[in-house]
Amino acid sequence: MRIAVLGLGTVGKQVVEVLDLERELFAARLGEEIVVARILVHDQDKRRPESMHSRLTYDPRDVLDDPDIEVVVELMGGFEPARSYIAEAIRRGKAVVTANKEVIARAGPELSANGRPGADLLFEAAVAGGIPIIRSLQESLAGNRLQAIYGIVNGTTNFILSRMHEDGVSFEEALQEAQSRGYAEADPSDDLDAVDAARKISILASLAFGGWVDVDLVRREGIRKITADDVREAKGLGAVIKLIARAEATPEGLLVGVAPTLIAKSHPLADVGGAQNAVYVRGEPIGELLFEGPGAGGPATSSAVIGDILDAARARRVGGRSVALPLEPAALLPAEVHQNAYYLRLRVREVAGALASVAQAFSEAGVSLRIVHQPPGGEAEATVSLVTRPTLRQHLERAREILHSTAAVLREESCILAEME
Amino acid sequence: MRIAVLGLGTVGKQVVEVLDLERELFAARLGEEIVVARILVHDQDKRRPESMHSRLTYDPRDVLDDPDIEVVVELMGGFEPARSYIAEAIRRGKAVVTANKEVIARAGPELSANGRPGADLLFEAAVAGGIPIIRSLQESLAGNRLQAIYGIVNGTTNFILSRMHEDGVSFEEALQEAQSRGYAEADPSDDLDAVDAARKISILASLAFGGWVDVDLVRREGIRKITADDVREAKGLGAVIKLIARAEATPEGLLVGVAPTLIAKSHPLADVGGAQNAVYVRGEPIGELLFEGPGAGGPATSSAVIGDILDAARARRVGGRSVALPLEPAALLPAEVHQNAYYLRLRVREVAGALASVAQAFSEAGVSLRIVHQPPGGEAEATVSLVTRPTLRQHLERAREILHSTAAVLREESCILAEME
Repeated sequence: MRIAVLGLGTVGKQVVEVLDLERELFAARLGEEIVVARILVHDQDKRRPESMHSRLTYDPRDVLDDPDIEVVVELMGGFEPARSYIAEAIRRGKAVVTANKEVIARAGPELSANGRPGADLLFEAAVAGGIPIIRSLQESLAGNRLQAIYGIVNGTTNFILSRMHEDGVSFEEALQEAQSRGYAEADPSDDLDAVDAARKISILASLAFGGWVDVDLVRREGIRKITADDVREAKGLGAVIKLIARAEATPEGLLVGVAPTLIAKSHPLADVGGAQNAVYVRGEPIGELLFEGPGAGGPATSSAVIGDILDAARARRVGGRSVALPLEPAALLPAEVHQNAYYLRLRVREVAGALASVAQAFSEAGVSLRIVHQPPGGEAEATVSLVTRPTLRQHLERAREILHSTAAVLREESCILAEME
Repeated sequence: MRIAVLGLGTVGKQVVEVLDLERELFAARLGEEIVVARILVHDQDKRRPESMHSRLTYDPRDVLDDPDIEVVVELMGGFEPARSYIAEAIRRGKAVVTANKEVIARAGPELSANGRPGADLLFEAAVAGGIPIIRSLQESLAGNRLQAIYGIVNGTTNFILSRMHEDGVSFEEALQEAQSRGYAEADPSDDLDAVDAARKISILASLAFGGWVDVDLVRREGIRKITADDVREAKGLGAVIKLIARAEATPEGLLVGVAPTLIAKSHPLADVGGAQNAVYVRGEPIGELLFEGPGAGGPATSSAVIGDILDAARARRVGGRSVALPLEPAALLPAEVHQNAYYLRLRVREVAGALASVAQAFSEAGVSLRIVHQPPGGEAEATVSLVTRPTLRQHLERAREILHSTAAVLREESCILAEME
């Protein structure tokens, strides 16, 4: 079976290398050889491995117009022209394997709907790298009614937050380390601002809950605002701050969002360190499942891509499924209806009664407090950390307003989502 | 699509209930209704849920001879007649879903080889309950060369060892608690003697490494010998004792075995508590993956069984794969070639030089020590705990012989596999 690879970056190169190297192994597993016949690249001046020279092309037509190419592996990244190439390949009856979360999150349903039976669109690598969460949601867990998915699905931000937690370094220092280690790109905005995580949770939520979650409707909050003080204070409360992507079924609709979140050390995702990814799934009848593994990087992504290639190849010969993305939009939970807990940190005047007036403000707004923590302070000022019980956002905002006009309160230093129950 | 369920125990009942209850949901996911048309039971006097009465039968011919039954779900347990029913169903072109690890471990290859194309044999529920490890090994990870699988795949023994670790109770007390909570059967031998875990690792190893691992060749050691002292001393060494099933590729062949093992607290499986199961996979290019979830019980097993039923149904309509079990036997590593670390605990006379003569014995046998620990002892006797570096079994046995004839050593209290590096 002849396949083509579009893009020869880290993942593309590794995928071609493994397919070349393990040709016999895969032929034995599959009953048929897989041959990388074409490799589409853009930059004509770049040096490429010699073994790939004869297969290089700069013209997408060499792939898309070739009827003998049965599977197209898109590893270019970016939205266009990747989306157009995928669309055309599917229209022409080829199977497509991609690691492109942007294309799937923004155009997945339309692409998968255009497939002919047998023309597959597979994208295990698009979410949580090497962790087989897409296939598990589609197949192994298909007999469940899922209730919740929580994920740490962005390795860059998890690396940064883990470094801040372990060594007390600042956000800027941790970011620099992530960049020097190659975990963060030169422009890390998509990671830091949770754009990447929002794409991934929109894909997971769409598969898990059977309605399409438009990525533009996913509430997202990045980690740029998280300070060393936040992380240290969280630690003092027996918690850790993680960028949590969540999708939760409620009677009023589906809650989908990404935000830095204070989670208790006992939370299943609290121990996920470094650039690791993890996905926690809760449902009926399964109960709770946790998947943990490498979420990004050449090797993990290659593993997922090659798994999909073998699956697509198998499906071409003996039939099989495509991952079906729902076309109908999901019923999302209006933000104002959902109750969350929050962590707040305030600087207060060190006057008798400061704590009492803070508590009074929350009480007036109808917000219950779960933890209030006042570490020993300086002479003129002190810090108050607190975690609320789940509350409507509007009540929280009311409490913040009251605090703003409370004489004993100097300023609010942080307001972060919390999940401590 | 008409299906039949063989056996109406906890899992069988739950599977029928979920299929009845979620008929519309599954019809939407699949494009076709799944109808449980027949339920084979044995005991004519038992009370069954009323909704199932009209579907009950006591005659396997009502299922096997009915050409309209396309999928047979075997949940009877035990080897025969389950094996024969599965074999006949497959021969007659039906798809079979089973949770029966005994049948798969003892007769899996022959059963799957007898299938016609399209006649599937699926058994996700046979290993690690709700954790989708079978499908992940077969599909998502198919592009990898796997190096090692370590698993906690028996919930009963993990519950017992976890209770012993957390509360210092004896093996007997923990076993009683497991029985009263329904985690252990009246005759718990298959669990305690690692028969169950050996079946599961033989299945996992066969799928992961592409050669059939005969369950009778799997070295297994149960947990009956583990005492409260072992668990406490392990804790003192920063370790925990778990029943670890392992399969590891080495240049000399495949190492497969189950044994209680002292693992460091930093080991990925150290924190798997209660009756949970977990499977750790290492391979190229994936790196490391960890799956954790409920390994047994009605709900988790039902989830896996229903996932397989939906998959089998889908495969009947649009084609698809069967889990292919290898027929060729795997090349197993001869036990005498493999190096393991061991934990030993000795009672010694409290005489000056006892520690020196113990160290001397290991040195003579060519075994290096990694940790030696002598807690404050009584007047006449003391305990010495130690962990060796990886060593050949024959060298360990030589050291034990020398210790046996060393005057300062009263007796050996424990000898347990260890993995502390």
